[in-house]
Amino acid sequence: MKIDAIDRKILELLTVNGRMSYVDIAKELGLSRVAIRERINNLIEEEVIEKFSVVINSDKVGKKVSAFFEVDCEPTSLVSVAETLVENPKVASCYQMTGPSTLHMHVLVEDFEQLEHFINEELYALKGITRVESHILLRRFKSRSGLKL
Amino acid sequence: MKIDAIDRKILELLTVNGRMSYVDIAKELGLSRVAIRERINNLIEEEVIEKFSVVINSDKVGKKVSAFFEVDCEPTSLVSVAETLVENPKVASCYQMTGPSTLHMHVLVEDFEQLEHFINEELYALKGITRVESHILLRRFKSRSGLKL
Amino acid sequence: MKIDAIDRKILELLTVNGRMSYVDIAKELGLSRVAIRERINNLIEEEVIEKFSVVINSDKVGKKVSAFFEVDCEPTSLVSVAETLVENPKVASCYQMTGPSTLHMHVLVEDFEQLEHFINEELYALKGITRVESHILLRRFKSRSGLKL
Amino acid sequence: MKIDAIDRKILELLTVNGRMSYVDIAKELGLSRVAIRERINNLIEEEVIEKFSVVINSDKVGKKVSAFFEVDCEPTSLVSVAETLVENPKVASCYQMTGPSTLHMHVLVEDFEQLEHFINEELYALKGITRVESHILLRRFKSRSGLKL
Amino acid sequence: MKIDAIDRKILELLTVNGRMSYVDIAKELGLSRVAIRERINNLIEEEVIEKFSVVINSDKVGKKVSAFFEVDCEPTSLVSVAETLVENPKVASCYQMTGPSTLHMHVLVEDFEQLEHFINEELYALKGITRVESHILLRRFKSRSGLKL
Amino acid sequence: MKIDAIDRKILELLTVNGRMSYVDIAKELGLSRVAIRERINNLIEEEVIEKFSVVINSDKVGKKVSAFFEVDCEPTSLVSVAETLVENPKVASCYQMTGPSTLHMHVLVEDFEQLEHFINEELYALKGITRVESHILLRRFKSRSGLKL
Amino acid sequence: MKIDAIDRKILELLTVNGRMSYVDIAKELGLSRVAIRERINNLIEEEVIEKFSVVINSDKVGKKVSAFFEVDCEPTSLVSVAETLVENPKVASCYQMTGPSTLHMHVLVEDFEQLEHFINEELYALKGITRVESHILLRRFKSRSGLKL
Amino acid sequence: MKIDAIDRKILELLTVNGRMSYVDIAKELGLSRVAIRERINNLIEEEVIEKFSVVINSDKVGKKVSAFFEVDCEPTSLVSVAETLVENPKVASCYQMTGPSTLHMHVLVEDFEQLEHFINEELYALKGITRVESHILLRRFKSRSGLKL
Repeated sequence: MKIDAIDRKILELLTVNGRMSYVDIAKELGLSRVAIRERINNLIEEEVIEKFSVVINSDKVGKKVSAFFEVDCEPTSLVSVAETLVENPKVASCYQMTGPSTLHMHVLVEDFEQLEHFINEELYALKGITRVESHILLRRFKSRSGLKL
Repeated sequence: MKIDAIDRKILELLTVNGRMSYVDIAKELGLSRVAIRERINNLIEEEVIEKFSVVINSDKVGKKVSAFFEVDCEPTSLVSVAETLVENPKVASCYQMTGPSTLHMHVLVEDFEQLEHFINEELYALKGITRVESHILLRRFKSRSGLKL
Repeated sequence: MKIDAIDRKILELLTVNGRMSYVDIAKELGLSRVAIRERINNLIEEEVIEKFSVVINSDKVGKKVSAFFEVDCEPTSLVSVAETLVENPKVASCYQMTGPSTLHMHVLVEDFEQLEHFINEELYALKGITRVESHILLRRFKSRSGLKL
Repeated sequence: MKIDAIDRKILELLTVNGRMSYVDIAKELGLSRVAIRERINNLIEEEVIEKFSVVINSDKVGKKVSAFFEVDCEPTSLVSVAETLVENPKVASCYQMTGPSTLHMHVLVEDFEQLEHFINEELYALKGITRVESHILLRRFKSRSGLKL
Repeated sequence: MKIDAIDRKILELLTVNGRMSYVDIAKELGLSRVAIRERINNLIEEEVIEKFSVVINSDKVGKKVSAFFEVDCEPTSLVSVAETLVENPKVASCYQMTGPSTLHMHVLVEDFEQLEHFINEELYALKGITRVESHILLRRFKSRSGLKL
Repeated sequence: MKIDAIDRKILELLTVNGRMSYVDIAKELGLSRVAIRERINNLIEEEVIEKFSVVINSDKVGKKVSAFFEVDCEPTSLVSVAETLVENPKVASCYQMTGPSTLHMHVLVEDFEQLEHFINEELYALKGITRVESHILLRRFKSRSGLKL
Repeated sequence: MKIDAIDRKILELLTVNGRMSYVDIAKELGLSRVAIRERINNLIEEEVIEKFSVVINSDKVGKKVSAFFEVDCEPTSLVSVAETLVENPKVASCYQMTGPSTLHMHVLVEDFEQLEHFINEELYALKGITRVESHILLRRFKSRSGLKL
Repeated sequence: MKIDAIDRKILELLTVNGRMSYVDIAKELGLSRVAIRERINNLIEEEVIEKFSVVINSDKVGKKVSAFFEVDCEPTSLVSVAETLVENPKVASCYQMTGPSTLHMHVLVEDFEQLEHFINEELYALKGITRVESHILLRRFKSRSGLKL
């Protein structure tokens, strides 16, 4: 599928406001409501749009501590450790990167007590983890939305 | 503002589908459409919901390379470097963490050529950067949506 | 419990001289001896004051070497290693920190021979320790007293 | 000055309770009140006892975040940086160690916002600092009192 | 075997063009065709010339990703791991170096998917590997030919 | 340009013996000499084959020490440092990689004295280099030929 | 034993020339031959002088490669690994230091082949070694003699 | 110069006892006193024997602390820093190694106070030093004598 300039414009508008109505998008782009609906359905079908979502302020729903982890695993356990970790609702994201053979993981918890519990009871209990490095978010300069990392 | 169990349920539904109609949410939760609208407006006003958005498959819009950077700065330049970087549309997010005095940055580019150009022309050209470490995403095990890191 | 400005003033005076009499504190703050006693009892009861203590010059009681350790453990052994180490009277303090999955430990010994013995016989003998890093204190610029780390 | 077994016993009792009366110490050790007073005065004069103090629960006086820093300096600035840092009331202790040419520093602050402010405004503003590494205390296994590190 | 100035000249010409005819080399150096043939045969016999080869543009034959690996092994497994890895056609070269006890390895693969597969299925599956570090080639400033590393 | 199975077969034969005659290749593949010549000319024109070369045993031409370098530069100097280094005939290859912001460089010298001279006189003399890490090749397990890294 | 200024003078002379005769030392210091002999015997008896020795140019006796190793061991194996290594005549010295839990070892070998053999066959074969880091001496700026490290 | 088996035997004897008389060496090896003298003179002339020396117990002459340093320099300052350091009598040896661009230095001092003074006043005062890492000797397993590192 080739996405054209109009598709890109639609994606930009939806990134800013994911609930913008077809009518408003159509008006903005000088197209008919039907054309917009068709294009958006197409973008969904082709999985360009993976889903519509919200950006929730973690702090305001009680997730006050945002932590980044580097999780070193025995090479033979890396995939199974990752598959266990992603089941944990405190784990926001989990990636394998080039560089050292670690999992890069983002975690959101309510407070330090919960973080310590997560590390000592949930993370260190997994077989195949050899070393963990954790860092706490101090300041957000920019936080993506729209594009998936 | 205190958010209650119904608010949380609404947030969960919107995380899965950010365009779910008030009527459908109301039906799901056994409440009136008006009550839902009021609650959502409240969540927006109190900035619990920062915005509605889409999750776009970066690959399908031509951003094939996802890179993570650790950017070491002279301590006196860290904030100004961060403020310049976040203006760059290739920079998806940028955080200051505990640990080493670096900026943690996520970047989305089209290909390796663009990545090399970003590093050598856009990043290394900034005053106050002393060292850069970059890693490429190999595999996504989980990619958050909804909660802001 | 809310502590007010007078409580803070009392804590400051006791940090400087933990044996200051109620009468002298009362005079200093323009209050009655009884009021001071009541406030101090309250601060003890509420565990704001954990205890009264002395600051002893380690050097003068023969503890000439002050060492800091980073103790790497197998993740599953970290808590049990910590619980064994704190029983050792040479261990002055022991903390779990963010960052690498190590224990941060302060040790006071009489001399280098005792340090070497502590490392090779007491520390390395524990199951679950994978790596140890030690550094010796060269110069004190400031040494807290009063507030617990 | 040679300290003997009785002196050591007195120091132990004062470590547990820095306000223990001479009478109670005397009773405990089977000596006269006058003998105890004389010995304690001697220990103070000889600077074995540096001072009497309190151990305050940092959390309960609003210092909720305890952080450890490794501060790398240009070698020629290390002493002057240290001398500036120890003036800062948020800095609980500051040591020079063997190992890398860094200052090891303990900091107590009220919350993350204050920590970020301390790092970006108070620490990074100092001339001669080249790199900072910070870690947050997650769990206390043991916290010394009495002996100075 | 001593190689002289004429041998070196021949090697230089063959480095630039490995298919240069004996006649052309002879003309260039003012020698007879027979003398050149003899010298080249000699250089081959003495294994100064290990073989004649081509330099193929990896990109144009579909090997778009060039990666460098540091492979940490249990010391007792290092040689056997190396001997297994060199059988893999994706492994272009594999060296043991001074420095850390790792294998230094160059890998050529078609794309990121193949790289991830190589790491997770082919590399991590080997017994005795404890940690892997990978980096992707961004830009070639110079790429040797002729002399074997 | 699409390269087919026969092209790949030709490249394989030339990798093993870069001087193989068109006639021998033709015989091996059951094709005419003319067809082979045409295909090879095509591969050269399309820059699939960058050049024909030799693999010379460095040791036998007096290059007894093979060293790998990681060269850290001030970010603004990286490209100019690289461009200077590649002019040096001792530098066999020089790449920019993901990971830390260093140049990865391979160097061939006659002996340790020459290596020390290269480091202290030729490398450290360049402006913009902040740190150098060098390792010596101990053992070759596999050394690529044919495909360019 | 207290050593005085004359003893120190004698030690200095012997450091420069360990075979200096008692007569020459006596002349130099304005003392009798007998006094010198007595003092030297005393220094030997008190083990101030551990032995008389030579400084041999390693290069000239065929030990052309001088290497420094950091040997990481499982903590429980450190002492036994050290005790095995010191039996190896290629090992010139072996120390336990503060810092990481490694042995610091100096090795003298004839050439690179012997070094590779030492690493792969003699060092890696020992049980309890987890990681080895080796560096080669490039240039001597000063090489102690006399005082034992 | 070629050294033969008898030369080697002589060197071994002198390594054990640098003051062994020619007569005793001659007896041990079944040769004449004159032959031994001639061979030793030859070994000295050819600089195989650099000098005769003593091995002094550092501890017993008041050098109680033995420290190893890694000194990072700006590349352009490395040689001049080394040349200044070797003038310092506390510096026992100083080498340039492969690996990171640091000087490896051994230092002998009387106590910790002197070590701290050496670091802060003598080492950090030198221009061109960017970072210093120091470790203290805890235990000697073997200490070379005879062969120069």
